Amino acid sequence: MNKFIRVDMTTKQVTIEEVPAKYAGLGGRALTSNFVADEVKPTCHALGKNNKIIFAPGLLSGTTAPNSGRISVGAKSPLTGTIKESNSGGSFSQKMAKAGIKALVIEGMPTDDKFYVIKMDVNGAAIEEAPEEILGGCGNYKAIEVLSAKYGEKVGIALAGPAGEHRLPTANISFKDPEGNMRSAGRGGLGAVLGSKKVKAVVIDDTGAGAVPIADPEKFRAASKVFSKALLDHPVAGQGLAAYGTDVLINILNEAGGLPANNFTSGRIEHNDNISGETLNATITERGGEGKVSHGCHPGCIIRCSQWYPDKDGKYITSGFEYETIWGLGADAGIKDLDEIAYIDRAMDDIGVDSIETAVAVATAMEGGLLPWGDGKAVLDAVKQIAVPTPLGRILGGGTAVVGKVCGLFRTPVVKDQAIPAYDPRPIKGIGLTYATTPMGADHTAGYCISGNILKVGADIDPLKKDGQIEYARAMQIGTAAVDSTGMCLFVYFGIADNPGGYQALIDMINAQYGTELTAADVDKLGESVLKVERAFNKAAGFTNAHDRLPEFFEYEPCAPHNVVWDFTPEEIDEVYNF
Amino acid sequence: MNKFIRVDMTTKQVTIEEVPAKYAGLGGRALTSNFVADEVKPTCHALGKNNKIIFAPGLLSGTTAPNSGRISVGAKSPLTGTIKESNSGGSFSQKMAKAGIKALVIEGMPTDDKFYVIKMDVNGAAIEEAPEEILGGCGNYKAIEVLSAKYGEKVGIALAGPAGEHRLPTANISFKDPEGNMRSAGRGGLGAVLGSKKVKAVVIDDTGAGAVPIADPEKFRAASKVFSKALLDHPVAGQGLAAYGTDVLINILNEAGGLPANNFTSGRIEHNDNISGETLNATITERGGEGKVSHGCHPGCIIRCSQWYPDKDGKYITSGFEYETIWGLGADAGIKDLDEIAYIDRAMDDIGVDSIETAVAVATAMEGGLLPWGDGKAVLDAVKQIAVPTPLGRILGGGTAVVGKVCGLFRTPVVKDQAIPAYDPRPIKGIGLTYATTPMGADHTAGYCISGNILKVGADIDPLKKDGQIEYARAMQIGTAAVDSTGMCLFVYFGIADNPGGYQALIDMINAQYGTELTAADVDKLGESVLKVERAFNKAAGFTNAHDRLPEFFEYEPCAPHNVVWDFTPEEIDEVYNF
Repeated sequence: MNKFIRVDMTTKQVTIEEVPAKYAGLGGRALTSNFVADEVKPTCHALGKNNKIIFAPGLLSGTTAPNSGRISVGAKSPLTGTIKESNSGGSFSQKMAKAGIKALVIEGMPTDDKFYVIKMDVNGAAIEEAPEEILGGCGNYKAIEVLSAKYGEKVGIALAGPAGEHRLPTANISFKDPEGNMRSAGRGGLGAVLGSKKVKAVVIDDTGAGAVPIADPEKFRAASKVFSKALLDHPVAGQGLAAYGTDVLINILNEAGGLPANNFTSGRIEHNDNISGETLNATITERGGEGKVSHGCHPGCIIRCSQWYPDKDGKYITSGFEYETIWGLGADAGIKDLDEIAYIDRAMDDIGVDSIETAVAVATAMEGGLLPWGDGKAVLDAVKQIAVPTPLGRILGGGTAVVGKVCGLFRTPVVKDQAIPAYDPRPIKGIGLTYATTPMGADHTAGYCISGNILKVGADIDPLKKDGQIEYARAMQIGTAAVDSTGMCLFVYFGIADNPGGYQALIDMINAQYGTELTAADVDKLGESVLKVERAFNKAAGFTNAHDRLPEFFEYEPCAPHNVVWDFTPEEIDEVYNF
Repeated sequence: MNKFIRVDMTTKQVTIEEVPAKYAGLGGRALTSNFVADEVKPTCHALGKNNKIIFAPGLLSGTTAPNSGRISVGAKSPLTGTIKESNSGGSFSQKMAKAGIKALVIEGMPTDDKFYVIKMDVNGAAIEEAPEEILGGCGNYKAIEVLSAKYGEKVGIALAGPAGEHRLPTANISFKDPEGNMRSAGRGGLGAVLGSKKVKAVVIDDTGAGAVPIADPEKFRAASKVFSKALLDHPVAGQGLAAYGTDVLINILNEAGGLPANNFTSGRIEHNDNISGETLNATITERGGEGKVSHGCHPGCIIRCSQWYPDKDGKYITSGFEYETIWGLGADAGIKDLDEIAYIDRAMDDIGVDSIETAVAVATAMEGGLLPWGDGKAVLDAVKQIAVPTPLGRILGGGTAVVGKVCGLFRTPVVKDQAIPAYDPRPIKGIGLTYATTPMGADHTAGYCISGNILKVGADIDPLKKDGQIEYARAMQIGTAAVDSTGMCLFVYFGIADNPGGYQALIDMINAQYGTELTAADVDKLGESVLKVERAFNKAAGFTNAHDRLPEFFEYEPCAPHNVVWDFTPEEIDEVYNF
């Protein structure tokens, strides 16, 4: 990966640069965050010409390392105003890496009103006008078909959906996956940044690319084998996720009393059987989809957590049908029918909105009286309005914080204006610290403390108590920032947390590829440095410790069934970033 | 004024306290801001039980001092998240002062869903259920009639309109004026705070109250006479404002090239004759309203800038028809018909929304494609939807920043999420510094640099140049914080800026009333201390210098006809609060 492609949408110029020396050892989130910190003015408007958006494969992307195909996207977020990295599956990362492209940077803003496609290949990149038929509300499913037909079935595609064209703060970036469906860099409205630059899509054609160069192929193969085994041997990474998808968590969280229901008024639901991973699996099997129950979101995935969900006639509705989405609609918004949830998930993917932000916005809108509680049909209709967008569609597309504003709500579950996801911070205190302090705004993937608090993987910490949580949330965020830089799926954590050999194998693969001699301490240092860079950007953008707080209602409203409140003091919370 | 009334809406208890010693010498904004800083947790949710709202007459309110009848309202703002003081005319302040009530504090939040009226009189206060007929969308004009009929024609009334009931961030607090119409504490969404506490109205009945005690009545009378003359002798305060109202500024600002048009895309309009103060005056006269052309917003006003605007048949439409409202709808949103603007102004008053925030939200919504440019009928229909509220009504009622979010706009004219009012900061650089740095969010009344930049009252500073502006904006903000503490209308500034005798008379009146020996230096110190207290609150709430910035587009888009951009550096802006 020796090319740095820079596309200026003001001048419509493409420049191919050598990778700056300071970025040589960086990939994924480490690269996107350092780049944004270096080149984006922290106080700039996220939708203005001074924001830049960068796509970067992880360090191991494009190799044969299992689960290494995540693509990181970075920019200043129009949702949170913070620095943002959001990563996704799909084939984009591996194709970029194989084509030798370490990063694509899109900057500036056109003065005309047209939308464009950026086409990358082994020789560089070009800017072309976007086909008319994929604009003006065309859904992502169709857009992927049209672009695949035009540029070749095998190309990788990154796409701003209708929400991105409208620059709505919930807009995600969708990536074509191996089955021609899509995966998303969901959080933080990066699709709106792409839309503001009038980039409808980015296409990567890796035709003619060779294999990614590996300094020590033998060492790489050996390490890769150990790493694979570590993943496959683990009960969660090797079996649980494949069998039931991430939706396996519905029953686990419900049992733990940490499944937020009815806009975070309780931690448990009665209708968990309607929406659980077990029901999901049974339904898919019953409808003849068993061969497709489980698959990977990117080539080389061996965990295969993604679920392919068909209708009663066995016809595809949606895939990548995740726990967080099913929780948001099924528990937080109280929709009791899995098919209704599936159709809403499909609509969100098709429109290109973050399914977490949108689902929580829906539940918040129910509390605000904008939508009836638990009414899946009304929600599907409302979500589809985001593509138009109608005023109601704009409110939901504005995200949870906007819903809270226009409904005059006290109970708005956001941190730094980003929706709190599927784990209640009161009975699962570790994840609350991640929500409060990560530079990303509320984000479970920034330090998945559910692991040691609930799943007891990598640690065993009482979720209801404060003991040990500060150190744990810190360590998880540091480790995650490092993993997010490798191109690895976050779920590899399950394979390496309790398995020192698995962790060493991951480091060995990096060393084998780059001819480096990194140690575990170096990896920690990388994670720390990423967080420090991100936090410095946020500070310059105007964020202070006062923003590292959960919404006040968590301090006053006990969460059933454990009837606990959020009780970390500000001083304790601020300890998380004391490194 | 020796009573401090505290109403706890959680327990429905009323407590009458002695005025705490630390507040003895404070009134108006000095009192509200110190109180909020002392008792409100800066990081609290503005619509939660930890926010408090305080009503405080100015130091001179209730006396015979001309123009001393402004009431200050303070709280944490749900619009900006900052500390907020907003003041208003009407008879409320004088009646509170006469009844000996130095402040009314409303705190807590009911757990039931009813709305209440707080009734104050010389003996104390009581909480009563609000009459059903003024709830659920009842307009403010009717609510004032109902409350006047119930509590007596002569009572003072403070009111949360339908917008306040819905806790929308544009909700103002309306005060009954001497003619039974209304005046507003417009900015910052304080009506939503009242609504969150389920207080529909506050009534003050001063029956049985004596005169406000004056330590040295003779000195007071003498000073008051000098002060009156200073006001009446000044061409702006004594004549211009009475003849044409504040709308006299349309032609002045248009001529100066600082009248923001079409969502701040230019500083001049062609249709100024349609909406100018001269046209306003001629229209009122022609329609038989000449006796009512000019009147005061509160008893004892001798400037009488308020205009009473009738329809073609001479029937009242609206009053307090201000320049900023007419600018917002007429220039920024391009509505060319004064009658259409008047009906929209009436609707905004009736619904209880800030006419500046709402008008700018309307213009921004036009840029975002939500409303057609310049279409007064569409705007009237949309504004009326705030009372329902429909989704479109909620978006507008959410304020300009929300409109910018849901329309994905780069050009959103706000500072600290509050709309920039009627003076373009590019060709009038002094006012830009006030917008950027005042603790209130964009607010021209926090340091009206138009005075020395355009009107050449009190100073003569080239509006297009940076020279002298930093010191001027600082001095104007300090002086304003002091004046806002006296209960004086801001326009008294015209009478004292170039008239040292007038200024001394103002200080003499305070000394004569309280038996103090304040000097001009003490008044400056008071102003400084108020700003420091406000700024410290904001800092604790998470605000930094990074928030003291104008929207980025002002730096890049030259404003016609002078074609100048906003060019103060961050370091220069930060000098304003270097005291």
